[in-house]
Amino acid sequence: MPGSDHPHAFQDSYPDALSYCYGCGRLNEHGLQLRTFWAEGSDETVSIFQPRPYHIAVPGYVYGGLIASLFDCHGTGTASAAMARARGLDTASDDPGLRFVTASLQVDFLKPTPLGPPLEVRGIAEQVSGRKVSVIARLLVNGQETARARILAVQMPASFLNPD
Amino acid sequence: MPGSDHPHAFQDSYPDALSYCYGCGRLNEHGLQLRTFWAEGSDETVSIFQPRPYHIAVPGYVYGGLIASLFDCHGTGTASAAMARARGLDTASDDPGLRFVTASLQVDFLKPTPLGPPLEVRGIAEQVSGRKVSVIARLLVNGQETARARILAVQMPASFLNPD
Repeated sequence: MPGSDHPHAFQDSYPDALSYCYGCGRLNEHGLQLRTFWAEGSDETVSIFQPRPYHIAVPGYVYGGLIASLFDCHGTGTASAAMARARGLDTASDDPGLRFVTASLQVDFLKPTPLGPPLEVRGIAEQVSGRKVSVIARLLVNGQETARARILAVQMPASFLNPD
Repeated sequence: MPGSDHPHAFQDSYPDALSYCYGCGRLNEHGLQLRTFWAEGSDETVSIFQPRPYHIAVPGYVYGGLIASLFDCHGTGTASAAMARARGLDTASDDPGLRFVTASLQVDFLKPTPLGPPLEVRGIAEQVSGRKVSVIARLLVNGQETARARILAVQMPASFLNPD
């Protein structure tokens, strides 16, 4: 299973100016630096995140806002890679320059998420249509599903890609 | 309008053991320490949060996961205060001990949220029913609405209130 030492995450293709996202920017030293990959031989995407002890909700459990954040960036990363793949491109070898923002995020917290083990987010692009990609994702800890999400991601306007 | 210097936030009533939440725990020094109040003479609740420069999505705009986090804690705080008020209690003078967790969170990002000015979250408990409270909330920056949320909050199980 890909981990944080995996050679190429979707986010590695993001240009520097778009790599300061608190959730997944590799250049944001205060951020979560989420990294997302294709699960081998599958249309599923995977991110692994090690929560820190202060990512707490009530004692022993992970903060829901952190979970929402992981789903958010996992969703836009998956959208980017899925649209590239739908166009016959490969995020690891090309830079298709397809960047996304989140239009809506729905998270269902099924049960408390224990704080300690790594968190695994697995997602799939359910639909790629025009500039929109809808992603469904689930959060697993020790193989148990504790939360689910639906993310609607929309391709960034050009003004975001070329900020003043 | 109440700010971070307001004398009594809902979260000030939370017992110490439940005050380490990354989003709103007053004892979590790494966290956001969100504070929520009744808007004067109203059933609306208000939180003000000053995002930090690293709470960035793309340059110039606030990270969506942060917005989801603010809604999350604003929602559980509002649920707690609304249920207390529905029972004729006052969170500022009594400690009704009504704590909530988030069952689901839906966020619609209406437009990009500029990073810089304080963020204002305003919410209302739409329904208080049994152990559940549904909250609708909106995010305002410079008076402009940039995101909306619906939060379903459920009263905590006793095991959370009295952890081992």
